[in-house]
Amino acid sequence: MMENVGGTTYFYPTSAENSVTTNDTLSSVNSSVGSSYQVYPGTPSHVTALKSKTGSSSFFIAEDTRMDILNRNALTLLQPDPGQFPDLPQDVDNYHELCPLEPIPTNSLQKALIGYQASMYKATHIKTGTRHCLRRIHGFRLQNTKCMTYVDMWKKLIHSNIVQLKEVFTTKAFGDNSMVFVYDFHPGSETLLTKHFASDSMNGYVDPFATDPSAPRPYSHHKNSILRHQQNNKLPEALIWNYIIQLTSALRIIHVAGLACRSLDPTKIIITVGNRLRLSCLGVMDVIINDTSTASNPVGLIQHYQQEDLTSLGKLVLALACKSTMAVQRENISTAVEVVTRTYTTDLRNLIMYLLSPQQRRSVTDLMPMIGARFYTQLDSVQTRTDVLENEVSKEMENGRLFRLLVKLGSINERPEFNMDGTWSETGDRYMLKLFRDYVFHQVTEDGRPWLDMAHVVQCLNKLDTGVPEKVCLMSRDEQSILVVSYAELKHCLEQSYDEVLNASAPTDNVT
Amino acid sequence: MMENVGGTTYFYPTSAENSVTTNDTLSSVNSSVGSSYQVYPGTPSHVTALKSKTGSSSFFIAEDTRMDILNRNALTLLQPDPGQFPDLPQDVDNYHELCPLEPIPTNSLQKALIGYQASMYKATHIKTGTRHCLRRIHGFRLQNTKCMTYVDMWKKLIHSNIVQLKEVFTTKAFGDNSMVFVYDFHPGSETLLTKHFASDSMNGYVDPFATDPSAPRPYSHHKNSILRHQQNNKLPEALIWNYIIQLTSALRIIHVAGLACRSLDPTKIIITVGNRLRLSCLGVMDVIINDTSTASNPVGLIQHYQQEDLTSLGKLVLALACKSTMAVQRENISTAVEVVTRTYTTDLRNLIMYLLSPQQRRSVTDLMPMIGARFYTQLDSVQTRTDVLENEVSKEMENGRLFRLLVKLGSINERPEFNMDGTWSETGDRYMLKLFRDYVFHQVTEDGRPWLDMAHVVQCLNKLDTGVPEKVCLMSRDEQSILVVSYAELKHCLEQSYDEVLNASAPTDNVT
Repeated sequence: MMENVGGTTYFYPTSAENSVTTNDTLSSVNSSVGSSYQVYPGTPSHVTALKSKTGSSSFFIAEDTRMDILNRNALTLLQPDPGQFPDLPQDVDNYHELCPLEPIPTNSLQKALIGYQASMYKATHIKTGTRHCLRRIHGFRLQNTKCMTYVDMWKKLIHSNIVQLKEVFTTKAFGDNSMVFVYDFHPGSETLLTKHFASDSMNGYVDPFATDPSAPRPYSHHKNSILRHQQNNKLPEALIWNYIIQLTSALRIIHVAGLACRSLDPTKIIITVGNRLRLSCLGVMDVIINDTSTASNPVGLIQHYQQEDLTSLGKLVLALACKSTMAVQRENISTAVEVVTRTYTTDLRNLIMYLLSPQQRRSVTDLMPMIGARFYTQLDSVQTRTDVLENEVSKEMENGRLFRLLVKLGSINERPEFNMDGTWSETGDRYMLKLFRDYVFHQVTEDGRPWLDMAHVVQCLNKLDTGVPEKVCLMSRDEQSILVVSYAELKHCLEQSYDEVLNASAPTDNVT
Repeated sequence: MMENVGGTTYFYPTSAENSVTTNDTLSSVNSSVGSSYQVYPGTPSHVTALKSKTGSSSFFIAEDTRMDILNRNALTLLQPDPGQFPDLPQDVDNYHELCPLEPIPTNSLQKALIGYQASMYKATHIKTGTRHCLRRIHGFRLQNTKCMTYVDMWKKLIHSNIVQLKEVFTTKAFGDNSMVFVYDFHPGSETLLTKHFASDSMNGYVDPFATDPSAPRPYSHHKNSILRHQQNNKLPEALIWNYIIQLTSALRIIHVAGLACRSLDPTKIIITVGNRLRLSCLGVMDVIINDTSTASNPVGLIQHYQQEDLTSLGKLVLALACKSTMAVQRENISTAVEVVTRTYTTDLRNLIMYLLSPQQRRSVTDLMPMIGARFYTQLDSVQTRTDVLENEVSKEMENGRLFRLLVKLGSINERPEFNMDGTWSETGDRYMLKLFRDYVFHQVTEDGRPWLDMAHVVQCLNKLDTGVPEKVCLMSRDEQSILVVSYAELKHCLEQSYDEVLNASAPTDNVT
């Protein structure tokens, strides 16, 4: 029974059907069929079984996933230090907030590969606010727009092992004629070169055991140094196959689309957490080396580049298996293959041999039998990762809702003044919400100790959010009156009060 | 400059180095290199590109993922209605909270397959609190414990397309001798039968177009009815291949482990959101049909069952392609294959023909060339799903932290009394936190309108959580004094005050 006197509801013995949670019985038992509000029910057993992969099975996000995401978010939000890069333009086409992603090259040595100096920036799209990766080719004038056909083809290519090309434009914003290739930004990526060949020098062609790399050395020296290097750093074969599957997956759709990668080398393949590989820099060669548009037989030329992609893949796998880019030097290849034969399966050797046999016409399809059942292993591991991630999502999903609810409550409780009324937050609906706030946060035990229980807070807020019919006893601060209200009524109070604040927050000239 | 008078800090012009956020300048610009606190930077472009799959690119979790997880959580937490199932035991071995997952069979018709009545329950492990799926075989006495070798082998099998067997025990808790198989619980799953063959009757062998199924019908009737049925319900071929890849993935590791599934039919394959298939009920046949342990040649027997698995797979794929379990009846098979030939690729037809040719020794390995590059498609789609899920995790990750921060603040702000002190929450550190609360939630515009801005709330709380050196101007309610404090000081106040409450919450006899 309730009675409303002067806006305050007073409490009389209630009917037995409704469970009433009082300040004294600090926990309530929910015996209904199916809870009417949502909580995370704990880690499911099929995810618990993967303990070694997930770390812990707590109610909060796994620490490694969390640190990884924090790191990626921080990198996404990173702003350049204007003092360090005074020459950076404010805007480049539709992009601003440029932030160099690698040291800007200052000498011409790095021009070797494509004949142009290149640099890379993170930038924010002015309209969408999304971060992108810009690859700038310095001092480049586009002579022939035919190559833009390739750009359009690249832009349509969406694949989980490819960094998608978004657009290409020319700009004078850097003070020269630059060509800019815009890609997805994958924060926290590193190249395969830095990940696995860090001990080699950057160009990958220096023998760390020789003082004079041009001096003639006996065959056994090569072999021993490659072998010693590989044995100290050997990559697990499963990881190499994981890479092969991802790289062939990307190559396959590139070749099917009538394109060629043309830059399949460890400096252009990026790796993010979970060993995801992505081919980057796609389309640059098609624009910069403008031979495809002038060739008499462009299809034949693309097929030639596709064959070169497969050769590059073979070299890359050989380098990974020997853990050294030195292995792909012409004079080392036979030694390197010997090393692979000794330490890895015949399948891996055969795959490398096939890819490094340019006299035959090769294709990704022919590689599939060599990969064989490893496709299944790969699928299982990726599917397992989705199971783990789904569990992470369900852990954190409800927190956003509860947070927003507390923000609403906070905007009402103790508001000093509303529409010139200094007592607004202490009267009517707001009074109920004030007492409810006390009920949620300020309960004390019988002997007067503060009673802190996160489960109580979460449960009360969930019931409020759902507006369950269950009733709750709210005591006035002077302990002279007790209000009995249902969560449904409290929900109504909250919505009403928040709407009042929200409506009043609109500029007066917009109120009609 | 700051000056502390009577516990209150007064504000004088500050040094230029520190950015000061005042009540008047409602937004602050952060120009530092890398923000010192964490926020979600928005949907990355490679996920935005998948719009059609993710729904929206908001800062909150995608609605379909959310509804799916909510549904699964609700099913996980579902409690049985004791009135509806008065006979359910309270405890069964280490499990309680039993909840039937399907109607408990009451007649003996459903015994057909394995000769025993069976039922299925969700149950909670008493010690871990994890939910499991219990499959109970009614009235079964284990004659021979040799089959437990198979149980041990099944328990070791972990795969993303298999419902893992956790343990097997016998019990009299149901009032009979029951054998209980404990599995992972996958809430929200349905069987392939209910998902794709719902229009067929449960036993799957009734022709809906005939009044008397035993009456002889001309060949063309069969053909036309199968064809008509299939054309109205045709499954996309990509989905069938998706299923084939998952089912062969599971079969492969089962066969490699020296086991056989023995129950590969649409009633025993479950499907969860994202089209994930899992083989269920594994190990039951090995225990119930106790021939493997008595056979003179158990290895040969397992090989026989493995061949039967492949035949079952062929029938299942044929039924899916014809969208009818009727298709696998002996007299319909040739018609059904004809229908598949007409509507699907040769690869699919060949796969079915291979699997339905029991005269040759078949294996999953031989299927791989028929699956071919579809492995790549499958991998791309699962990898893409992990990208989407990682983005969902990063959206919601920070909310849990901010929620916990608000709960801490709530337990301090406006606490009516602490250690007999009615002014505790209004003095000292707590006074700063009270003014900070007003700063976060109760700001007004110059013309007195409430100023509501979620970004402001999130930013303030993030700065508080990190304790950044940035300073903030807090105005007393009478507007007579202004406090200038850094977020670092506020963080210290919060920690101190919360520790006070926390320590006081401990039972007094525990305080030494």
